[in-house]
Amino acid sequence: MRKQKKVQDSYVIMTELVLPNDTNTLHNLMGGRMMHWMDIVSAIAAQKHSNRIVVTASVDNVSFSESIKLGNVVTLEAKVTRAFNSSMEVHIVVYAEDIPSGKKMMSNQAFFTFVAVDQLGNPIDVPEAVPETEEEVRLYDGALRRRQLRLVLAGRMKPSEANELRSIFDIKEDAEGEV
Amino acid sequence: MRKQKKVQDSYVIMTELVLPNDTNTLHNLMGGRMMHWMDIVSAIAAQKHSNRIVVTASVDNVSFSESIKLGNVVTLEAKVTRAFNSSMEVHIVVYAEDIPSGKKMMSNQAFFTFVAVDQLGNPIDVPEAVPETEEEVRLYDGALRRRQLRLVLAGRMKPSEANELRSIFDIKEDAEGEV
Amino acid sequence: MRKQKKVQDSYVIMTELVLPNDTNTLHNLMGGRMMHWMDIVSAIAAQKHSNRIVVTASVDNVSFSESIKLGNVVTLEAKVTRAFNSSMEVHIVVYAEDIPSGKKMMSNQAFFTFVAVDQLGNPIDVPEAVPETEEEVRLYDGALRRRQLRLVLAGRMKPSEANELRSIFDIKEDAEGEV
Amino acid sequence: MRKQKKVQDSYVIMTELVLPNDTNTLHNLMGGRMMHWMDIVSAIAAQKHSNRIVVTASVDNVSFSESIKLGNVVTLEAKVTRAFNSSMEVHIVVYAEDIPSGKKMMSNQAFFTFVAVDQLGNPIDVPEAVPETEEEVRLYDGALRRRQLRLVLAGRMKPSEANELRSIFDIKEDAEGEV
Amino acid sequence: MRKQKKVQDSYVIMTELVLPNDTNTLHNLMGGRMMHWMDIVSAIAAQKHSNRIVVTASVDNVSFSESIKLGNVVTLEAKVTRAFNSSMEVHIVVYAEDIPSGKKMMSNQAFFTFVAVDQLGNPIDVPEAVPETEEEVRLYDGALRRRQLRLVLAGRMKPSEANELRSIFDIKEDAEGEV
Amino acid sequence: MRKQKKVQDSYVIMTELVLPNDTNTLHNLMGGRMMHWMDIVSAIAAQKHSNRIVVTASVDNVSFSESIKLGNVVTLEAKVTRAFNSSMEVHIVVYAEDIPSGKKMMSNQAFFTFVAVDQLGNPIDVPEAVPETEEEVRLYDGALRRRQLRLVLAGRMKPSEANELRSIFDIKEDAEGEV
Repeated sequence: MRKQKKVQDSYVIMTELVLPNDTNTLHNLMGGRMMHWMDIVSAIAAQKHSNRIVVTASVDNVSFSESIKLGNVVTLEAKVTRAFNSSMEVHIVVYAEDIPSGKKMMSNQAFFTFVAVDQLGNPIDVPEAVPETEEEVRLYDGALRRRQLRLVLAGRMKPSEANELRSIFDIKEDAEGEV
Repeated sequence: MRKQKKVQDSYVIMTELVLPNDTNTLHNLMGGRMMHWMDIVSAIAAQKHSNRIVVTASVDNVSFSESIKLGNVVTLEAKVTRAFNSSMEVHIVVYAEDIPSGKKMMSNQAFFTFVAVDQLGNPIDVPEAVPETEEEVRLYDGALRRRQLRLVLAGRMKPSEANELRSIFDIKEDAEGEV
Repeated sequence: MRKQKKVQDSYVIMTELVLPNDTNTLHNLMGGRMMHWMDIVSAIAAQKHSNRIVVTASVDNVSFSESIKLGNVVTLEAKVTRAFNSSMEVHIVVYAEDIPSGKKMMSNQAFFTFVAVDQLGNPIDVPEAVPETEEEVRLYDGALRRRQLRLVLAGRMKPSEANELRSIFDIKEDAEGEV
Repeated sequence: MRKQKKVQDSYVIMTELVLPNDTNTLHNLMGGRMMHWMDIVSAIAAQKHSNRIVVTASVDNVSFSESIKLGNVVTLEAKVTRAFNSSMEVHIVVYAEDIPSGKKMMSNQAFFTFVAVDQLGNPIDVPEAVPETEEEVRLYDGALRRRQLRLVLAGRMKPSEANELRSIFDIKEDAEGEV
Repeated sequence: MRKQKKVQDSYVIMTELVLPNDTNTLHNLMGGRMMHWMDIVSAIAAQKHSNRIVVTASVDNVSFSESIKLGNVVTLEAKVTRAFNSSMEVHIVVYAEDIPSGKKMMSNQAFFTFVAVDQLGNPIDVPEAVPETEEEVRLYDGALRRRQLRLVLAGRMKPSEANELRSIFDIKEDAEGEV
Repeated sequence: MRKQKKVQDSYVIMTELVLPNDTNTLHNLMGGRMMHWMDIVSAIAAQKHSNRIVVTASVDNVSFSESIKLGNVVTLEAKVTRAFNSSMEVHIVVYAEDIPSGKKMMSNQAFFTFVAVDQLGNPIDVPEAVPETEEEVRLYDGALRRRQLRLVLAGRMKPSEANELRSIFDIKEDAEGEV
């Protein structure tokens, strides 16, 4: 039987200070730098789940709504939501704080997918991810739908076969921002 | 009447050499570093179209299929596909070359969206983007569909109203990889 | 009366991946890079306690016993131990993990001191730090002794006046590694 | 008999320009960046003394009194003070200059300790360090006292056995800043 | 017979955004950062011509006339002008744009020379570079003269033997800036 | 009368450790990184001579003969050779050491020219540079010849007017490498 690991065991927190080279001429954090941090924190979460070297397989749609300023503290929290054979989906939530002024906001969230590989770079199976909290179960359940969207977008699944994905059209009203 | 600019006028090429700090322990380029480059090249394309400072609004689903090695040369080509009021969608195509061995491959593509802002960071209108070649027209046409997908995924449009997006289920068979 | 804040409210976790440029020719993390990370994580803890910009005032003796390897994940946990007028002592504990092999070790700990400043860079008072757990109380109590050692080492207090510091000679046997 | 090398032969000067990414939001050099430079310059001094790869073993208490500004030139001078079997203590003095305004100040000093290692990372003996000038002799003599302080602080020596260290209580009045 | 390759096949475009750490206290791009970019883009051009690893052999006189500002976009275009046994001369033209204000200028040009090497670092022959356009022919013809100047400047050719170089004294009036 | 300053007062030493990101796939230091360091050390020398902000005006021909390896220590020594109105020529000598093996070599030398500017970026006069040692006098004397070469190469002086430069054809035999 396949090994099991709790979702919680993959949990990682990363904290970054926004430095001058991370910002554009308006002194706002550039989106690409944020993506770079998201990739590192979620790769570590996937490593912790699989105890393997991992490579980024895909990044889901990410939107940037609020500007994050030079000197702000950015906190990224990542955990595996679900594992499929050799791949794992990781959920990342990002908070930004302007500490001197006491402002803290949830800046955005994202889903990255990783593949565990052996020393030669070949895919290798990973343990199942077992959700425990209500939120973990909800993310676990949505993972199938997001996976179908990825496969359809990558041209590797016919939309007509993406049964789970179709449910997006019903589910959206109550689960905003987490397709 | 709104100002018009050719898609071609926003075209940008960026070339990067994969250095040690860009790679993981398998000496492969990390996905986050690639996203960082994609953000810069596409921000420049959006700047060229709008002659404004721009901020990243969203990143569409990106998949990473091939590994890119230390010492490889990565070429990123970006151009605006379509403009909406103050926002612009940019299409990025990435090639990776192992020059000594003569291997070149298309590594991946992506769509980033930017908003043009004034010196205070407020959104400001941009010129229309006018496609000319067959490929530019195809990307221009698809932009509406991708925009609806972004709005639905961000919880800002009801799936039932995303008429263009529904067409994805018919169109996928012949336009793979470019939803 | 002076404002009070819980020690726990300043708690920060930072996670870093050891990249090639962080290492020497044996592929071990360089001590200076570790100090750089320690400074950032503890500055953020001091910011959170004071809601002010902070500047590094001093670094206590740090020892490096184990080598940390390229590709390891380094986790730094920081929290304020005690506040004095405008200065705060921060305690940092560092863990290093070789995730694929499942090895995790406490790598080292350190005490950094910060001064809260206003926009002109002048020192400004900070809230008291209130310890709650047994460990927080122990660190709070030791802070006075460590402060005297700093002042003596900086030539700003006569050793004969450092009453708390003298106790180091009795206390060491049971509280190793935390002078 | 053990090989001998002059202290002066390990002397290294490093010069750094304070760039935007080295500074906090007040445009002051961050302490961690300074520690990073101190580690590199003193590692080179220890390398020159031992003709070996070296690893950082410990950093003594460092205090930061003056703020160093963006655009300042920082000069770090390092030399070995004394060698013990496989370890070497290095003394670093740091100067900061605001060249356009002609201001130069001694910013701080520090003691770092390194261990020489072979290609497998195992400790290996180094030559004795022979002091020549009056200042070199004074630093050589103090090295024993600082070493005991390090051992006591690391919980590897009982305070009651640190005979040299006790002398700190008498010696401080005339040799400030160089415990 | 020696293999031939078109000059055009080595053509590379690189685009860089001027970030804070690339600038001095006047917020102008530092010359050394520009040279760093020139080296990378021209190394890639030489790699493309030779399909080999290449090492920088020399940099010709470069002058910096206009200041390039923080936030500007710098475009570097490079191509091989001529090949000699194992070495290749590469011509680089640099443009700088302040996109929001619509200003674009040719900032400077340079000639870098590279040697192709095998895996052991030994020089290895490269294909001939075949110029096609009028400009390529002019750069090809001037390469011999520049090569003699390099050899004379490096003390490896007697000035009295540098026949081509002497012609510089006649040719300058009509080919400014491209000695 | 114009202010005078000794050449020796501008003397700067910079030491750098070759890190992974500074090297190519053969683990050799890239030429562009070296140029970057040369620019910083010589800018500091020009700052020290002029007590002004300085901008790079030109770089003379530099040749790279020996490869410098990952982990090597690079020492750059710079001093002003001669001042002209608002510009200064700086001479840089570079040494590379493989310290564990005890190998040290002079790697290369270069001449960079800087212009002193005021806060608005306008050129401003600098003190005369007074050479004292024999070598300083020789570099001072050659500066006029190198300046004419720069002006001719930049198309700002007719070769027929470059009287000093002509002497290059006689002088080369005994002063190799220092045109």
